[in-house]
Amino acid sequence: MSKNLFTPGPLNTSATVKQAMLHDLGSRDEAFIRIVAEIRAELLSLGQVSHQTGFEAIPMQGSGTFGIESVIGSTVHREGKLLVIINGAYGERILKIAQRLGIETESLRCPENDIPDLDLLHETLGDDGDITDVAVVHCETSSGVLNPVEKIGAIVHEFGRNYIVDAMSSFGGIPLHLERAHIDFLISSSNKCIEGVPGFSFVIARRENLLSARDHARSVSLDLFAQWEALERSGQFRFTPPTHTLLAFRQALKELAEEGGIPARHKRYQRQHATLLAGMRKIGFEEHVPVDLQSPIITTFRYPEDPSFQFEEFYEQLAERGHVIYPGKLTEHECFRVGNIGRLPEDAIPNLLSAIREVLAAMRVHLPG
Amino acid sequence: MSKNLFTPGPLNTSATVKQAMLHDLGSRDEAFIRIVAEIRAELLSLGQVSHQTGFEAIPMQGSGTFGIESVIGSTVHREGKLLVIINGAYGERILKIAQRLGIETESLRCPENDIPDLDLLHETLGDDGDITDVAVVHCETSSGVLNPVEKIGAIVHEFGRNYIVDAMSSFGGIPLHLERAHIDFLISSSNKCIEGVPGFSFVIARRENLLSARDHARSVSLDLFAQWEALERSGQFRFTPPTHTLLAFRQALKELAEEGGIPARHKRYQRQHATLLAGMRKIGFEEHVPVDLQSPIITTFRYPEDPSFQFEEFYEQLAERGHVIYPGKLTEHECFRVGNIGRLPEDAIPNLLSAIREVLAAMRVHLPG
Repeated sequence: MSKNLFTPGPLNTSATVKQAMLHDLGSRDEAFIRIVAEIRAELLSLGQVSHQTGFEAIPMQGSGTFGIESVIGSTVHREGKLLVIINGAYGERILKIAQRLGIETESLRCPENDIPDLDLLHETLGDDGDITDVAVVHCETSSGVLNPVEKIGAIVHEFGRNYIVDAMSSFGGIPLHLERAHIDFLISSSNKCIEGVPGFSFVIARRENLLSARDHARSVSLDLFAQWEALERSGQFRFTPPTHTLLAFRQALKELAEEGGIPARHKRYQRQHATLLAGMRKIGFEEHVPVDLQSPIITTFRYPEDPSFQFEEFYEQLAERGHVIYPGKLTEHECFRVGNIGRLPEDAIPNLLSAIREVLAAMRVHLPG
Repeated sequence: MSKNLFTPGPLNTSATVKQAMLHDLGSRDEAFIRIVAEIRAELLSLGQVSHQTGFEAIPMQGSGTFGIESVIGSTVHREGKLLVIINGAYGERILKIAQRLGIETESLRCPENDIPDLDLLHETLGDDGDITDVAVVHCETSSGVLNPVEKIGAIVHEFGRNYIVDAMSSFGGIPLHLERAHIDFLISSSNKCIEGVPGFSFVIARRENLLSARDHARSVSLDLFAQWEALERSGQFRFTPPTHTLLAFRQALKELAEEGGIPARHKRYQRQHATLLAGMRKIGFEEHVPVDLQSPIITTFRYPEDPSFQFEEFYEQLAERGHVIYPGKLTEHECFRVGNIGRLPEDAIPNLLSAIREVLAAMRVHLPG
């Protein structure tokens, strides 16, 4: 049975995106080289930047985390110091990556259902002249909080630091002008809001900052500069690319354009998010994140207080009915998550809400709603 | 037009392998967790080892090189020293990876069309007690040389060192008993002789050696031990897996079994390799590697002496006719390569040979044959 995936990914993709994978192409094939070039150009355009304005798009094999590590490990200089702004598991992961690579780090933490304190950021950058790079997650997928990357960017820019944004689960689904947000490196992946299949990540980089990353990479596989250089020189990846996944991604980009680009997709996600919130509130669920801080990507709901509620059973019974939700990833509160990105049918959220009512009744869980 | 790929990968895959990708599965889905477990068990069986005999199979996102780096970067201890046996570009790549990671290295080089000197290896290991790990490429894809990994393994075992084999382009196409060859870590990828689509690599590891790799990884993304631990604990990848590629791989494993397993596939490749050699010799081409050192995977041919031969034109004209060959990757001699792995039609090699004759005639290249 085909299921609706209310997760942060892998997600549902259109039939045509999957069918695009029914072809074997050689990685040196002219057709494939053209496709990679098309994808790179389109990614810049989605970030509202261009080659002319000094930006480069670089696909990188592996999952999103591999893309993050390629940026941290290739662009933070040997003598650099990275400040990581953290309000969830994905911020913690950036910190862990940097620490594992032996990079000097500082962190600025705030509660998982809040956004970072911008005055404190200003103060930290003012106080610590050793900080060379600042990293933050756009949509903190562990909670659904949407961090104010433009406002953070203005502060980072004021202090002339390198600015790295993990836009894994937001890019393509929420409008973002990279240059206006002062972003130097943005990372996202093939299977989030662009609605391709999983298998690679990509980086949009300010060329000037990328050039200064030459010879700084701690890894051969994840060397961002070398990956870019090879793509520029030959149009080819350094190492075997996931050709089928790239074909699917090109189709996904076409379908994003046909839908009306990022503004239209953003509206679809907002509409689905609003339907979800209204329905869940009516049932009696509470969100963990204040509504004005929520992204339209994924939403965190607190476990009901009724002790009859057992998440694993709730999850399994929904999955049996074809609805796959997602467990929580918060340390502070028992929660579960419902995502609404991916190519979901129009009636996906209403059907999910009916199934939730049904399962709660079967589990004899009583909510205040 | 669909082309025949006579390359080291990406390769031709069967229609059914590609069709297996027409499904979206969640990475926490029970069905997907079962598929990953099936794949891991089947990989052990292809290596003629088992969980019971102390081996583990670990898929790793990214291309084959990512798998190699995950083994080098996770299993060579901080105070270790790696000896790399080198007779081509892929041996050089292992050395480069280790050096980039700051690992102390030693190399043992031999000509690109020869196999390593085993007496010299014995002497080197006897002389240098600091060497903790030895790495070699099984089929050196840059030349097609098949290195004697069993004999090398016996020597490495005699000295009690950790033995790493890059079996990227050979595993699944050439019988290999990991335990008899004394291999501790073997790396291969989804799209070589198993004939899946590209998108991940995998490692077969001796558990005892894997356990001693805990806390040694230089990277979060490529942490082999952590990847294994997560798979054991939850059946899930740490980071988003390429679900569609894994579905294709499971289908490819089924088709390998249906063909008669590795011995049958080996025979197919040997048959195609023999047809290729006979035909190319008849045309007048010379192989760069002595026939008794050649693998049945990929073959290196020297450029003809006739100055009318221009590789780029030769390549393009063959590609236009639907035959994709591969450029050389040797430093010593001008060569090109013809691979015969992947799901090629039965008449693929005879058709390639006819096309080569046709193109040479059109280019007015005269060969002695």
